[in-house]
Amino acid sequence: MDTAKRMDLLGTETAMAVSVETNNLSKTGMKVYPFNLGDINIPTPHIIREAVKKAIKNGKTGYCPAPGIPELREALADDVGNARNLDYRIENVSIQPGGKPSIGKYIAAMMEKGDIVLYPNPGYPIYESQIEFYGGVACPYGYINTSNGFRLDFEAIENGIKNGAKHIFYNNYNNPTGASSPDKEMERLAILVVDNDMSLISDDAYFDTLYDGTAKSMASLPGMYERTLTMYTFSKKFAMTGWRLGGAIGPKKIIEQITRLNVNMESCTAHFVQHAGVAALKASRNDTQNILDKLRVRRNILVEMLNDIDGIEAHCPEAGFYVFPKITNLLKRTGFKNDEDFRKTILTETGVSFCGRQHFGRRLAGETDFYIRLAFSGIGKDDLQEGMTKFKSWIDSNIK
Amino acid sequence: MDTAKRMDLLGTETAMAVSVETNNLSKTGMKVYPFNLGDINIPTPHIIREAVKKAIKNGKTGYCPAPGIPELREALADDVGNARNLDYRIENVSIQPGGKPSIGKYIAAMMEKGDIVLYPNPGYPIYESQIEFYGGVACPYGYINTSNGFRLDFEAIENGIKNGAKHIFYNNYNNPTGASSPDKEMERLAILVVDNDMSLISDDAYFDTLYDGTAKSMASLPGMYERTLTMYTFSKKFAMTGWRLGGAIGPKKIIEQITRLNVNMESCTAHFVQHAGVAALKASRNDTQNILDKLRVRRNILVEMLNDIDGIEAHCPEAGFYVFPKITNLLKRTGFKNDEDFRKTILTETGVSFCGRQHFGRRLAGETDFYIRLAFSGIGKDDLQEGMTKFKSWIDSNIK
Repeated sequence: MDTAKRMDLLGTETAMAVSVETNNLSKTGMKVYPFNLGDINIPTPHIIREAVKKAIKNGKTGYCPAPGIPELREALADDVGNARNLDYRIENVSIQPGGKPSIGKYIAAMMEKGDIVLYPNPGYPIYESQIEFYGGVACPYGYINTSNGFRLDFEAIENGIKNGAKHIFYNNYNNPTGASSPDKEMERLAILVVDNDMSLISDDAYFDTLYDGTAKSMASLPGMYERTLTMYTFSKKFAMTGWRLGGAIGPKKIIEQITRLNVNMESCTAHFVQHAGVAALKASRNDTQNILDKLRVRRNILVEMLNDIDGIEAHCPEAGFYVFPKITNLLKRTGFKNDEDFRKTILTETGVSFCGRQHFGRRLAGETDFYIRLAFSGIGKDDLQEGMTKFKSWIDSNIK
Repeated sequence: MDTAKRMDLLGTETAMAVSVETNNLSKTGMKVYPFNLGDINIPTPHIIREAVKKAIKNGKTGYCPAPGIPELREALADDVGNARNLDYRIENVSIQPGGKPSIGKYIAAMMEKGDIVLYPNPGYPIYESQIEFYGGVACPYGYINTSNGFRLDFEAIENGIKNGAKHIFYNNYNNPTGASSPDKEMERLAILVVDNDMSLISDDAYFDTLYDGTAKSMASLPGMYERTLTMYTFSKKFAMTGWRLGGAIGPKKIIEQITRLNVNMESCTAHFVQHAGVAALKASRNDTQNILDKLRVRRNILVEMLNDIDGIEAHCPEAGFYVFPKITNLLKRTGFKNDEDFRKTILTETGVSFCGRQHFGRRLAGETDFYIRLAFSGIGKDDLQEGMTKFKSWIDSNIK
């Protein structure tokens, strides 16, 4: 029995290997500092945990409709619509077991074999994996590191469009870079998408984790409503990563196709978990604000401590929980050739665990700088400080 | 934005349309009798509901490994292995959000484009849908209705094999027919599979719902262990349909590929639900026996009441919760041309809802008889009797 050839095209999340390494180290008795995790070590809010218990008690344990229970579809249409000043209805929403399932389902439903699809790199590695798995041409675009933060590389995007790109993945409040687009950048991108009759998949995983100000969605820009699929997840805002609850929101035509895939792939998303989702969306800000408050404190400490290390240059992310510092000079100062050797050495010698740039896609042509990604969602404030202190000490002792 | 061509190949579960019709009728105020549902109206056992609450309380709300938590993989390897007298270990198990996800994942991982795949028809319609979606040639085999129950149509199976079939879906305790294979039938099939170097996907959804005796698995037959993937679900045995918990069990090589798809598609199955699964597998027979006891009572009443109607011939299923009576003579007596017209008339005039043969695949060449499927999992004993009484009265009044 041989594996089917199409499996050669399938990628993975190599960041998971870092988790395995970290856990193995922890088992030896060494204290580890998990800056590698995109998981959240803050409890899911009480009101949500109570809602799931109530739903189970009320017998919400049988099958439910493939696109989700109407209450959740309506609540999500309202929530996503209100936050973006757009009109979404129940028929614009298909509930999914997580944020991730929308990636492959969109690709399967809407991307023709051979289509060129633009995607961010560094970025979430599953975009590339699913594009290639379904026979598309994955066309990466990078970010330019400016003094004001990371900016979309429009040269790469325009080149992809010249070559005929039909779809573009866009992840504002990007994982791993933390890049957020100024209004002008979003407007420029929207014009390109509309003028070239493309469609856009807006991965809004971190949309609701903006620390200050009001988040903006590509779907709100002129001409974009009818060509944007928004990927929503309950994971980040509500600390519900392991609950596996999310949704695809967009034009009815796409949503219907995505739901056909749900019928084939998983029947429906866990029934009582959807009732917890309704409670989450209807919760008051007080019930959930605690998560973002904690993350903000950690972010500020981490960015300050990183920038305090000579050779590290870190932007402060406006949303999400990742810092993506440039460490090119630090590698020179410590004699490492690349971020992967550096990462492994730091992990084994200090227990401080983080991801490298290569966990978020293949290096692009002409890429010369080195970066690492530190998440502050899975490590408490005290351990964060202790870990960063150890990290700095190690560096101070190992400058060549 | 056009839908991708591959979506033309995707099928669905048309039985869901019957649920919609039934619900709509119910909303008009008419009492309906849901024999159409494969869902279960018996509560999930208390011990399982308590386990999920405890898991949430204990913070099992974050991500977990893509193939499942080790405790559940081990418990499932033990349970499936012990029930089949086979040695399965943790590496032979990949946890899935339901029984269904293993169908498409197996096909994606192991079926080459153009491969011929045998599947039962009447049968679960997602087999055919997923074979065709991934570019395979779906080759149906039927059942022969004998005085001892439904038997595999080996002529169709052998024809498929002559044409080069590489894989076969096999669903003992079949949905919808209730067919169960005598030992000799399984042995004959195993020899064909081994001699022709095929692989077999054993859909064991109803394996643990055998009312009497000991269930037997294809994986236990000589030469079959290394070429069988078992599809397991918690849905039926434990009344956990809406929990979305299942697993793929088989050769490590296949399991690894299936897990790669999990990484891409849904990251992991809901974390705390998996802890409930451990509790289910470790529960004593007393904790869960209630489900099968109730179903047995319903089965016996339903089969007796059906066979009491002139023109209906129903076998008593040894497992599962479906009866698939032949109604050819009944249609003649009542003047209907096919089961679909009959089904719709009975539903609107009596509220008795069931599925027709066409909800389980296209009619085969040479198929002349008519069948309907009645499920007794979603309707209590009293309503079952009341519904069947109404059904019989309607027929008695409408004999031509």
